[in-house]
Amino acid sequence: MRASEKVQCDRLWDRLMEMAQIGATQKGGVNRQALTPEDAKARRKLADWAYERGFAVFQDAIGNMFVRRSGTDDGLPPVTTGSHLDTQPTGGKFDGAFGVLAGFEALEALEDAGVKTRHPVEVVAWTNEEGARFPSTAMGSAVTTGKITLGEALRKTDPDGIVLADALAEVMAATSELEMRDLGAAMHAYVEAHIEQGPVLVSADEVIGAVTSVQSMFGFQVDFFGEEAHAGTTPRANRSDAVLAAVETISTLEAEATDDADALRFTVGRIIVSPGAPNTVPSHAHFTIDLRHPDDEEIARMTDLIETLPIKIASKRKCRATVQRTSEVPVTEFDPEVVALVDQVRQDLGLRGRRMPSGAGHDAMYVAPTAPTGMIFVPCIGGISHNEAEDARPEDLADGARVLVDCLAELAR
Amino acid sequence: MRASEKVQCDRLWDRLMEMAQIGATQKGGVNRQALTPEDAKARRKLADWAYERGFAVFQDAIGNMFVRRSGTDDGLPPVTTGSHLDTQPTGGKFDGAFGVLAGFEALEALEDAGVKTRHPVEVVAWTNEEGARFPSTAMGSAVTTGKITLGEALRKTDPDGIVLADALAEVMAATSELEMRDLGAAMHAYVEAHIEQGPVLVSADEVIGAVTSVQSMFGFQVDFFGEEAHAGTTPRANRSDAVLAAVETISTLEAEATDDADALRFTVGRIIVSPGAPNTVPSHAHFTIDLRHPDDEEIARMTDLIETLPIKIASKRKCRATVQRTSEVPVTEFDPEVVALVDQVRQDLGLRGRRMPSGAGHDAMYVAPTAPTGMIFVPCIGGISHNEAEDARPEDLADGARVLVDCLAELAR
Repeated sequence: MRASEKVQCDRLWDRLMEMAQIGATQKGGVNRQALTPEDAKARRKLADWAYERGFAVFQDAIGNMFVRRSGTDDGLPPVTTGSHLDTQPTGGKFDGAFGVLAGFEALEALEDAGVKTRHPVEVVAWTNEEGARFPSTAMGSAVTTGKITLGEALRKTDPDGIVLADALAEVMAATSELEMRDLGAAMHAYVEAHIEQGPVLVSADEVIGAVTSVQSMFGFQVDFFGEEAHAGTTPRANRSDAVLAAVETISTLEAEATDDADALRFTVGRIIVSPGAPNTVPSHAHFTIDLRHPDDEEIARMTDLIETLPIKIASKRKCRATVQRTSEVPVTEFDPEVVALVDQVRQDLGLRGRRMPSGAGHDAMYVAPTAPTGMIFVPCIGGISHNEAEDARPEDLADGARVLVDCLAELAR
Repeated sequence: MRASEKVQCDRLWDRLMEMAQIGATQKGGVNRQALTPEDAKARRKLADWAYERGFAVFQDAIGNMFVRRSGTDDGLPPVTTGSHLDTQPTGGKFDGAFGVLAGFEALEALEDAGVKTRHPVEVVAWTNEEGARFPSTAMGSAVTTGKITLGEALRKTDPDGIVLADALAEVMAATSELEMRDLGAAMHAYVEAHIEQGPVLVSADEVIGAVTSVQSMFGFQVDFFGEEAHAGTTPRANRSDAVLAAVETISTLEAEATDDADALRFTVGRIIVSPGAPNTVPSHAHFTIDLRHPDDEEIARMTDLIETLPIKIASKRKCRATVQRTSEVPVTEFDPEVVALVDQVRQDLGLRGRRMPSGAGHDAMYVAPTAPTGMIFVPCIGGISHNEAEDARPEDLADGARVLVDCLAELAR
């Protein structure tokens, strides 16, 4: 019997809905940002579910949690699946949580089908994938795979100045009984299930994407520094207005980012202005740029512009500008054999789907250089994500879990 | 003897420096926003100084404080001077505080010169002139002269959601011994001294401006509402990006506000973006516009544009926009006789100066319709204000106090 026959649509859906109550918002979304009390509650719940099924649970120094189903040769590195339990401030019920709970459903289906695997199979909940509260996305997977150091991560601060190390200690205290595991333990393979967060599958009425790659993703912080002045008395000629310099920059960059193919993703998600008084010319304007494209060359063209234009505009407007790269992830190609396996299992199960690149970044991106890696996409309604209205169909999610468990069983055989 | 002979430059300067310690910032400025504990301390100090000189002190329901030197006919309405003790978040030592303490210096000089006046002479410290913490500027004078109601003012909230009535009660508790006075008590005349906050006097090497009028001042809040979406997966064509709509609006308005005469003042002092995550297309962008011009017609042209352009841009960009006027003050003309008196006293004292309009709004603007009103400007270094670097020369401030006391003595004679 294939383990996929034991996937229970209702069980997976009920767990998703129960998890979504932690940090539930009035508009039907979820606010469960990384390393908050809500995040701690979500981890607690996952550990409790694991104990009910007799699985072991571990955590590491950056707070990644691992639920383990033993293999017949437990000394072998595990086949790992999973995603993250943290959300955007106005996030949805499925982004991340689906990957963790589809993984958990896969462990249960293996158990229920009585499938023995040689490798252990593990479900991981990576810490702080969203990077909404503490900067730097996919932090848990980045630390465990050596992309950034633990020390670097622990020193990050949130907008209130709280240091990550302190927030992490409070959250890990909620699951203090867990055995600690070293960072960077080897994986035999990694397969992550996730909602697509875009319109491709849903528009084509397809259920499964075998993800081939992740487009390149660059992040920037731009700061303009001017001079405070009285809004009523200071002539334009005497002003050093940080906001108007920022506005000209964003406006020019938007025009440059308007490609015919609509493949370039240009987002200014945060602007902070100070001192922020309506009747004072502002002395500081800070904003972020999130830039993505499937082609590294196009990214290079925009990156050049983003790093030079603010300086030019600042000098014209008697301001000073700084530009900082906060992330630079070139295109990630997934393992051809894992991609082929996902696509083959999809066909074996008679499901409609395709091979496709990912528009969003995922923990799988950081795992890819350290182990054979792939991803499974399922559709979300309207392609909407990072939004409280994010939604998905139970039967599509269950199909994703079916493909996942058969892939895991094959890889761990 | 003219009372102006008794003005003491050092006494005035020392009081200004002592007051500037309350809320002092590391960069040499002052953060003493309205209805904070610092504001309470400043009021306490003014009351204590008044008692030391034997003056009576009153307050009214919106927290305006009045220091009174009796006249020979104490039933007559007072001749009033003053300004405000609250500051911008990154304000200076002189904006407001000079008007209050020059008024106090005038009371002391009248006392020291033994001048008897028929009318009482009062110094007022108006509540919340800056409107930095609680919106609506010149609130104390607006309430006492009926421009807005007390109830309206008490219901205002700060960015943390604290209601003004509660903050006011805490601040007034610091001077709870003061006798209460009815709102809207009549004034025989009102003369306010203030730093110019602009470059005119300092550029011409002049010391005294007899202020003829205040330019018109309009305030707006503009809000764009879009739709949250994932920054990596959502094509441009599927986005409703509130920030890019706001940026196009500000950019277009700036171009329209670029007049050859450099007389129009266009300021976007505050932008707030939410949810504010770098990797989420933002669903809400809020910003303020502060608009001023000496000519009401030019203001009307810009006001039309500000109230229609956001709607057009929103519809093009699949967003929704709202525009709200937060203030609309047409040009205020001061009383010709008071203006003439200020200018005459300046000449009698042998001081260089001129008649001039005010670029900034002041409490005098709201008092003007209810009593003969004028203002006295003194220069500030570099014309810089609403900035921690705001500065002034002690001898210029003393000259301002000299003109003030002789005007008050004449009006209260």
